[in-house]
Amino acid sequence: MKICILGFGSVGQGVARVFSMKRDIIKQEYGLDLKLVAAADRSGAAIDPDGLDTDLLLNTKKDTGKISEYPKHGVKGISGMEVLDEVDYDCLIEVTPTNIEDAEPARSHILKAMKDGKNVVTSNKGPLALSFKELAHTAALNKVQFKYEASVGGAMPIINFAHETLSGCKIESIYGILNGTTNYILSRMAKEGSSYDQTLNEAQEMGIAETDPTQDVEGEDAACKVVILANSILNMDVTYDDVEVKGISQITPESITLAKKEGYLIKLIGEVSPDSLEVSPRLVKEGSPFAVEGTLNVATLKTDLADEVTVVGKGAGSVETASAILSDIISIWKMK
Amino acid sequence: MKICILGFGSVGQGVARVFSMKRDIIKQEYGLDLKLVAAADRSGAAIDPDGLDTDLLLNTKKDTGKISEYPKHGVKGISGMEVLDEVDYDCLIEVTPTNIEDAEPARSHILKAMKDGKNVVTSNKGPLALSFKELAHTAALNKVQFKYEASVGGAMPIINFAHETLSGCKIESIYGILNGTTNYILSRMAKEGSSYDQTLNEAQEMGIAETDPTQDVEGEDAACKVVILANSILNMDVTYDDVEVKGISQITPESITLAKKEGYLIKLIGEVSPDSLEVSPRLVKEGSPFAVEGTLNVATLKTDLADEVTVVGKGAGSVETASAILSDIISIWKMK
Repeated sequence: MKICILGFGSVGQGVARVFSMKRDIIKQEYGLDLKLVAAADRSGAAIDPDGLDTDLLLNTKKDTGKISEYPKHGVKGISGMEVLDEVDYDCLIEVTPTNIEDAEPARSHILKAMKDGKNVVTSNKGPLALSFKELAHTAALNKVQFKYEASVGGAMPIINFAHETLSGCKIESIYGILNGTTNYILSRMAKEGSSYDQTLNEAQEMGIAETDPTQDVEGEDAACKVVILANSILNMDVTYDDVEVKGISQITPESITLAKKEGYLIKLIGEVSPDSLEVSPRLVKEGSPFAVEGTLNVATLKTDLADEVTVVGKGAGSVETASAILSDIISIWKMK
Repeated sequence: MKICILGFGSVGQGVARVFSMKRDIIKQEYGLDLKLVAAADRSGAAIDPDGLDTDLLLNTKKDTGKISEYPKHGVKGISGMEVLDEVDYDCLIEVTPTNIEDAEPARSHILKAMKDGKNVVTSNKGPLALSFKELAHTAALNKVQFKYEASVGGAMPIINFAHETLSGCKIESIYGILNGTTNYILSRMAKEGSSYDQTLNEAQEMGIAETDPTQDVEGEDAACKVVILANSILNMDVTYDDVEVKGISQITPESITLAKKEGYLIKLIGEVSPDSLEVSPRLVKEGSPFAVEGTLNVATLKTDLADEVTVVGKGAGSVETASAILSDIISIWKMK
């Protein structure tokens, strides 16, 4: 299977690293030969129909910051769309940064790949939150596969879990802690009694929160995931604007202490149900599966037959997220 | 797909109930037409190539205790093996009671079905714990599918979860609370400070523990599941005798109180790793995913790429367990 990666940040590099680690075992176990024929970042691309050397690719990115510096096969200034025209590939891995304003350039990349008859795997929340129906429709029309497990919860499996493992059940609603950064901040505030600003600073210093933390702390990231789950698992037809969103920046140490006294914790919860799409801080009981700490994500799926089923896993991380992308690729291979 | 059910206790009746509830929606969603052509219990069988009426079947069993009393198509005294020769079917659902002495009659039922070229779905731990390699080998040889999600954890998905959803990861070890009855007893003892015998009696009155509770409380049931997970997920080649087993009947209220003071709970934990196959009471931290109460099951899969992933779900229940069987059937249908 010839692979093209657009976007070479944390997730893209994770995919290259995972390819490097697992290529031999994947070939042996599934008969699937993974060949990375192109990878692109803002600087341009590295393109080699005979397959790029993933270790050399990772080192080039690390040393120069630019994938286009890849020896011999580097191409400066070429755009993602041009790369898709340039190379012969079977599956696009779209992992450019999430843009929740207009979902570009990811949306155009994905649509072009599908119209060209290529399968697509993505971790990019922008196009899924803003244009899900368009993408699902285009995939169906062009008879290609479209997988996006990594877009929600990183290494916490939920989308394929609902579609495949729970295929006998109807999923009626989903509740989850869908953002690791806010879970880290709230867990630390509860443990240390520290203020929101102080804890956010600490999280930023540790690289858990970004310099501009808005997407995480104001609930925007979790809201994107609510939309993706609503469309893909509950078969709804909604976009980002349909979600009621409230973040955690107004949470005081006092409210957390008060909750703790009563045996509760405050968590940022995403709710996905036919009646309500919402992200907001809520009380959860200590000792419940939702009391998980650190950057963990958790989701409970309420089903018609199996009652409640809960999954817990790492919400982020380069290799962790890449593992979900690899599972999607293997799933595409198996369904061939 | 023509279905034959052998065994019509709690799980078998759950399957019939689920067929009755979901037949139309399954046909609509997957194009899969489920037709129950035979069902058998100790009294005999009901056989109808045109499809049995699942509601009438359930009522017959409820009113008379005997499936062979099914109007017109009841057959008294016919054995499971004879039923498999009698009817034309595509998929056997083997849900006779678990026998961990010699795995019969389930083992013979399953082998016969496979040799006749039929797919098999089972929740029966006996043959899986005692003859896994033989069954897996026979399935491969005869090019039939063999699925057994319901054998471990009822409605807590773990086997297909590991094989499908986490296909990109290697599972290195598994820790879990794999028996709901003991989890219920230990949770109640921790909450009420009551003795083991008193709590067991209460659980028996509520129908959570059986009259002869040995399989559950002495860890035999959990040990069967350890074997199934070791063989099917960690690709080991082990049987029941390879598991070190210690149950919960020696746990005192004092030891539970002592653990609680230090922030711990006592749970019956199954460990599955290349170095150790064990079922024993262990300390788990309050606030960890393993602190779940009631009859819930939980399992943590340690992976090479996604770190730890945890699933929580109902370990038992007629319809809940049947939902796992239905997911297996759908999975067989999709892989056709």
